[in-house]
Amino acid sequence: MIPRYARPEMSAIWTPESKYGIWLEIETLAAEAMAEYGIIPADAAKAIRERGNFDVDRIDEIEREVKHDIIAFTTSVAEFVGEEARFLHKGLTSSDVLDTCLAVQLTRASDILLADMDALLESIKARAYEHKMTPTIGRSHGIHAEPTTFGVKLATYYAEFSRNKKRLEVAREEIATCALSGAVGTYANIDPRIEEYVAERLNLEPEPVSTQVIPRDRHAAFFSALGVIASSIERLATEIRHLQRTEVLEAEEFFSAGQKGSSAMPHKRNPVLTENLTGLARLVRSSVMPALENVALWHERDISHSSVERGIGPDATIHLDFALARLKGVMDGLIVYPDHMMANMDALGGLHNSQRVLLALVEAGCSREDAYRLVQRNAMKTWQERTPFADHLKADADVMAKLSTEKVDDLFDLDYHMKRVDHIFGRVFG
Amino acid sequence: MIPRYARPEMSAIWTPESKYGIWLEIETLAAEAMAEYGIIPADAAKAIRERGNFDVDRIDEIEREVKHDIIAFTTSVAEFVGEEARFLHKGLTSSDVLDTCLAVQLTRASDILLADMDALLESIKARAYEHKMTPTIGRSHGIHAEPTTFGVKLATYYAEFSRNKKRLEVAREEIATCALSGAVGTYANIDPRIEEYVAERLNLEPEPVSTQVIPRDRHAAFFSALGVIASSIERLATEIRHLQRTEVLEAEEFFSAGQKGSSAMPHKRNPVLTENLTGLARLVRSSVMPALENVALWHERDISHSSVERGIGPDATIHLDFALARLKGVMDGLIVYPDHMMANMDALGGLHNSQRVLLALVEAGCSREDAYRLVQRNAMKTWQERTPFADHLKADADVMAKLSTEKVDDLFDLDYHMKRVDHIFGRVFG
Amino acid sequence: MIPRYARPEMSAIWTPESKYGIWLEIETLAAEAMAEYGIIPADAAKAIRERGNFDVDRIDEIEREVKHDIIAFTTSVAEFVGEEARFLHKGLTSSDVLDTCLAVQLTRASDILLADMDALLESIKARAYEHKMTPTIGRSHGIHAEPTTFGVKLATYYAEFSRNKKRLEVAREEIATCALSGAVGTYANIDPRIEEYVAERLNLEPEPVSTQVIPRDRHAAFFSALGVIASSIERLATEIRHLQRTEVLEAEEFFSAGQKGSSAMPHKRNPVLTENLTGLARLVRSSVMPALENVALWHERDISHSSVERGIGPDATIHLDFALARLKGVMDGLIVYPDHMMANMDALGGLHNSQRVLLALVEAGCSREDAYRLVQRNAMKTWQERTPFADHLKADADVMAKLSTEKVDDLFDLDYHMKRVDHIFGRVFG
Amino acid sequence: MIPRYARPEMSAIWTPESKYGIWLEIETLAAEAMAEYGIIPADAAKAIRERGNFDVDRIDEIEREVKHDIIAFTTSVAEFVGEEARFLHKGLTSSDVLDTCLAVQLTRASDILLADMDALLESIKARAYEHKMTPTIGRSHGIHAEPTTFGVKLATYYAEFSRNKKRLEVAREEIATCALSGAVGTYANIDPRIEEYVAERLNLEPEPVSTQVIPRDRHAAFFSALGVIASSIERLATEIRHLQRTEVLEAEEFFSAGQKGSSAMPHKRNPVLTENLTGLARLVRSSVMPALENVALWHERDISHSSVERGIGPDATIHLDFALARLKGVMDGLIVYPDHMMANMDALGGLHNSQRVLLALVEAGCSREDAYRLVQRNAMKTWQERTPFADHLKADADVMAKLSTEKVDDLFDLDYHMKRVDHIFGRVFG
Repeated sequence: MIPRYARPEMSAIWTPESKYGIWLEIETLAAEAMAEYGIIPADAAKAIRERGNFDVDRIDEIEREVKHDIIAFTTSVAEFVGEEARFLHKGLTSSDVLDTCLAVQLTRASDILLADMDALLESIKARAYEHKMTPTIGRSHGIHAEPTTFGVKLATYYAEFSRNKKRLEVAREEIATCALSGAVGTYANIDPRIEEYVAERLNLEPEPVSTQVIPRDRHAAFFSALGVIASSIERLATEIRHLQRTEVLEAEEFFSAGQKGSSAMPHKRNPVLTENLTGLARLVRSSVMPALENVALWHERDISHSSVERGIGPDATIHLDFALARLKGVMDGLIVYPDHMMANMDALGGLHNSQRVLLALVEAGCSREDAYRLVQRNAMKTWQERTPFADHLKADADVMAKLSTEKVDDLFDLDYHMKRVDHIFGRVFG
Repeated sequence: MIPRYARPEMSAIWTPESKYGIWLEIETLAAEAMAEYGIIPADAAKAIRERGNFDVDRIDEIEREVKHDIIAFTTSVAEFVGEEARFLHKGLTSSDVLDTCLAVQLTRASDILLADMDALLESIKARAYEHKMTPTIGRSHGIHAEPTTFGVKLATYYAEFSRNKKRLEVAREEIATCALSGAVGTYANIDPRIEEYVAERLNLEPEPVSTQVIPRDRHAAFFSALGVIASSIERLATEIRHLQRTEVLEAEEFFSAGQKGSSAMPHKRNPVLTENLTGLARLVRSSVMPALENVALWHERDISHSSVERGIGPDATIHLDFALARLKGVMDGLIVYPDHMMANMDALGGLHNSQRVLLALVEAGCSREDAYRLVQRNAMKTWQERTPFADHLKADADVMAKLSTEKVDDLFDLDYHMKRVDHIFGRVFG
Repeated sequence: MIPRYARPEMSAIWTPESKYGIWLEIETLAAEAMAEYGIIPADAAKAIRERGNFDVDRIDEIEREVKHDIIAFTTSVAEFVGEEARFLHKGLTSSDVLDTCLAVQLTRASDILLADMDALLESIKARAYEHKMTPTIGRSHGIHAEPTTFGVKLATYYAEFSRNKKRLEVAREEIATCALSGAVGTYANIDPRIEEYVAERLNLEPEPVSTQVIPRDRHAAFFSALGVIASSIERLATEIRHLQRTEVLEAEEFFSAGQKGSSAMPHKRNPVLTENLTGLARLVRSSVMPALENVALWHERDISHSSVERGIGPDATIHLDFALARLKGVMDGLIVYPDHMMANMDALGGLHNSQRVLLALVEAGCSREDAYRLVQRNAMKTWQERTPFADHLKADADVMAKLSTEKVDDLFDLDYHMKRVDHIFGRVFG
Repeated sequence: MIPRYARPEMSAIWTPESKYGIWLEIETLAAEAMAEYGIIPADAAKAIRERGNFDVDRIDEIEREVKHDIIAFTTSVAEFVGEEARFLHKGLTSSDVLDTCLAVQLTRASDILLADMDALLESIKARAYEHKMTPTIGRSHGIHAEPTTFGVKLATYYAEFSRNKKRLEVAREEIATCALSGAVGTYANIDPRIEEYVAERLNLEPEPVSTQVIPRDRHAAFFSALGVIASSIERLATEIRHLQRTEVLEAEEFFSAGQKGSSAMPHKRNPVLTENLTGLARLVRSSVMPALENVALWHERDISHSSVERGIGPDATIHLDFALARLKGVMDGLIVYPDHMMANMDALGGLHNSQRVLLALVEAGCSREDAYRLVQRNAMKTWQERTPFADHLKADADVMAKLSTEKVDDLFDLDYHMKRVDHIFGRVFG
């Protein structure tokens, strides 16, 4: 985990304190459930609830000795609880606590990510409405195609992140399970009602069948979803990087007063935030393969997944949280240059209407082949001379034999391309 | 795509013939929609429906000339349709046809995969019920832990593939969209009702907002789901490979009469099918990263995703289909050796009951520390001498001061570990 | 493997005919070695050499029966050779033949790739020299930085592909080994001299110690090298895509007469080849992870690597060969627009010299802080008005108090930035 | 980076203190070079060398303000150096310092990894010689094949890690370059001799041609090499996990006195270290894809690689260092059970000699088909009854018609399989 790309709330989920706190809550709930079902004395559960606590340094000290994190933990707790501590952890296996804890951490992380997503969606939506009718050239292959609006461009990101939100909700559900099923998942030494009791209080679902662990296909699906979201971040970041290019300059990351793009070149205003997001996308994505490789544990479990998750668990959620928040900031502050958009669009002399002219000629009775030829010869002149395409058409007798001057002017009406924007916004924003 | 690992039905989706057939259907439906809305003459749509056809060799020939696959295709179709062909493809952009076709192919592929999944689930379920009460040792870290049943082990795979089926259904939905929105997604030259008409007839949803293309986060999510499924296949395959090890031999892939494991060593019966599945899992999984990298297309699209999808589209679906079918065959034919399971479990002299003895001593009033010591000293003897653990306990006066002979025998009752199997099956199979 | 992205020479390596031909050569050489060392009769080796042949259909037919490819092959060969065939394959294990064959295929593939690389290097070098002194703006973050030359830009690719060539040579060496060591690599039934004999004639090195197979870390290193090369292809392809953007247009892929960028928009000339190369880079790179996962085979081997290699072996080499050749074609035909390069550079009014002005002011006695302030206030005017930076400086009394008009003009001398080009070319091209 | 899997020496390379220390050395050396070539006053260089220092907290404070790490650093240094600090960083661009620093860090990391590798090789070699002649069954597909020795098995790992060492040496060379070439790599404001001077003193090679940055194909190759090494670690770790399985138990990780495998089950001794190594291998490997994606930076550079390298730089080297050291510890302490190896081998009644019997029958005049039939019918009895294969053969009149009792006994001589061990050791260990 790179501290530079971490925010406190998400990071807090992954501290030792947080982890031990969740362990304690799981153990305490399990004890309370056992008391409820008459398996351990009610007083013991009460003592665990009231005096239950832990000491991180003490846990570290014990672990160095026994080399077993859960034993170190319960020993530390026992030092607070006293004699009743012997009812702690009864019938549980370490993974019951570890895996249920991971579920709690990942659901909490998901909740933050979902909130990030909402904030980002709100920001994109606001900018989309602001520029709903701001004309800009649509580009395929990096080459001018036909006009669209900057609002429509942003609407595609809104729709994409809406899908991502849904994916994240599904991913959250995937990993929101609780397993307290014992050494090999048979409930031999633990009543399944304990699991149900604890699950309910932690807002988790009982895992229908576990081995020693919660099955890792769930986590693989979870991290894959993060990988998709990261890739969408990359798409929006890449768009902004393109728009900020010197030659394009249709939009720009906000540049704070006093910020320096370069120590020597005052004209430098670099899209460093979106470049950074591009890199973070690669990092988040790199958790997908190890998560997939974690699925095929041996028999009822091996522990190879553990070190992987100590890495990707915090890393992928913390960096994705940071990236979503940074992206929202970029969107909020994005400086948009409608005049540059218009200037860029006009730079080809209206060539982006070539298809419309072609269709008009066909409608006016030209064969498609003839129409294409007529359009192309005027387009080529426009391309070479960068003079208005409409002027060339109007100077072409063969064209004018089919189209009136007014008709030609009509064909260069920008509104034509914007007539469905309302329809699109209706689909996307409801 | 490796022909050796391909089945005809799935492969048929990805042939040129199949692709052009779908293109033709899209173009025809679009023409019919336009006729319905009065955009083109009804006769033209009728002619396209009735005479529409294509010639693969002819398309190849034209494409070599014009270097544009859609133009080559429409030219070939026009040679069948005749004069009315000029209404073909009106207002559409190539990607409208290409991306909607991919959606059709991927949904068809998904339907086959879903059927594969059903067959596999059925097979696992049958074997799980067959061995619902077949005792076997549960293993963590590859080391004997506590008893479970082979049915419970199989139930975990049933639950996992049930989740995978749900993931696949979601993934299918992800990519089941239709876009007929024109050059940059503004519907400037095409009425959105055409898209709705075509989508409905192809059982697709209209894409809420497209650029020139259907957004690739959908496909990234789709291939990620295939990657998770592949990893689950790897888990089951790995389990069987472990069970078939010479020293374990609790189960074995079916070995057909006349099959030869080795030209020289008649004792060789290798788990070649599940080893193969392990490799296929790696292959299918390798489509995830390029699918994620495909998301960040430039602006309204670039065409870098195209070559990737020409590879991973057929490869991942064809190999996954083959793998699911092969896995089903392996499960159907799996030879299970309950006696070997019992023999392996017994090889440690009943040591897998050490936890139960410990708990019984604690219940009988021992401190946990004393109990652990008592259990351990007898366990160590058992481990070294491989003689029954129960015998050692019974010969230990300190143990017998707490437990009766009958109690000790009780603690070695295998049924104890199987008492929740019904409950688990109820959760998993309903 | 995608036929569209395959060239005949490389594809030929991976046909069944080619594979069986190599198998036959290995078996024949092994027989000749055994004859040489008196292990089998000289006549047998002679018969195998003279009459040795195979029939692909026949092999398929037998394999359907025995489900063992090597047995099917030797049976077919035996039908040509006759009685002496019983000396065929003596003491060999199937993997001896399979793995040594893969080594032959991969070295042949490497030789083609190395030739591709040479051709590409030659092409880049020619274009680099052609544009050695063609000024163009250097860009960091997509933003204008300082001038460089197009030749220097190309020199970076030359250097990068020179490194790639070296990597490929090392990778070739990695996999150029021969193993004929028997069932578990102990040479129990085969004299190591046979391996040495065969290796020498196939231009391979004997594998120092094999298990049943040639160790897969070698192949992992090989495919990783291909992944690096693919990523370099992506870098050059991305550069060209950027240069061809409508707003930049400093270079363009060759556009053949009669080619159509779009059926409707005659101005469209899309960088489709380099976009395609970007996608192919993703595909080739996708072979790296499965190759790495193939390393950890169980014990003396399992067969999980086999299906993976049936995929990535042909796919990665065939697509990389195609990509390298396509990239060479792109470089050969690349249309370069030096005037656009100059126009783009000048669009910021000479701002790219801001650092030089700063340094000159410091040298003239300004403090760095004062100098920065002076430069910045004139730079900002230039940025806003897009009028020449030099004019603003000359109109600034504070600047002119330090610098003469001639000095200012000197600072805008483009040659300043090009004075080390010879030095750089000397380093790169020798 | 996961602190749990980090060792101090490697971690120290990646601290802020370490990084700033390297920056200072680069700046100081550059100043000294400039003094040497008369570009700045000798006194300035002397002052920088003598008084040059930095304050990490102060740097953080400044960076929060100026958002530029190099400016923050040089400002802090200037506060120590005083007036002469204005000659600091002259003509350099930030990346000159950053990238050269990364080269220093990665070469230092490589040196530690190379030492790790030497220690591991030494350990494997010692264990290999110790068990040079310890017979054990070779396994393919997890199934008994033919005998080998545990020393030969270990020799394969020695050979593999020797290759890895060579790969690491090459990888180290890849990234051991220095670039001090200015804003776009043209040396416009910096004499190339400065680069040569600094490079030489840092034991780096001057980068032949840089853009603004050292090209990232170098780093991609570097991290790919780490990925291959990680996969080899996985192979050896997997082997040990297999050998420690309850049913196999041919070797075991050292289990320290007082260590607890399980709180309840005293028989549990789990291969937790090698399972952990399996997970760490996945983690290290996950740096390969982002490193490959980092290659295609835009034009003369974008900064997307930076966040990636802040992650994978420390993570991959620190975890690999930890893993290599842990693996060496595992190998040193590995408990080997030759008697279990022999018992496992004998469990199939000598069936692993079936190939030898077959060959002997053929030599004695049987046709291969007859011989196979004779061997198989006795092998099948052995398999079913687990009684000695030799006994069955001796009781088979058809076999005994061809072979004498002594001959049969000869065929079960274990030494036959070990006769080339010396030869193999000679090849591997020289």
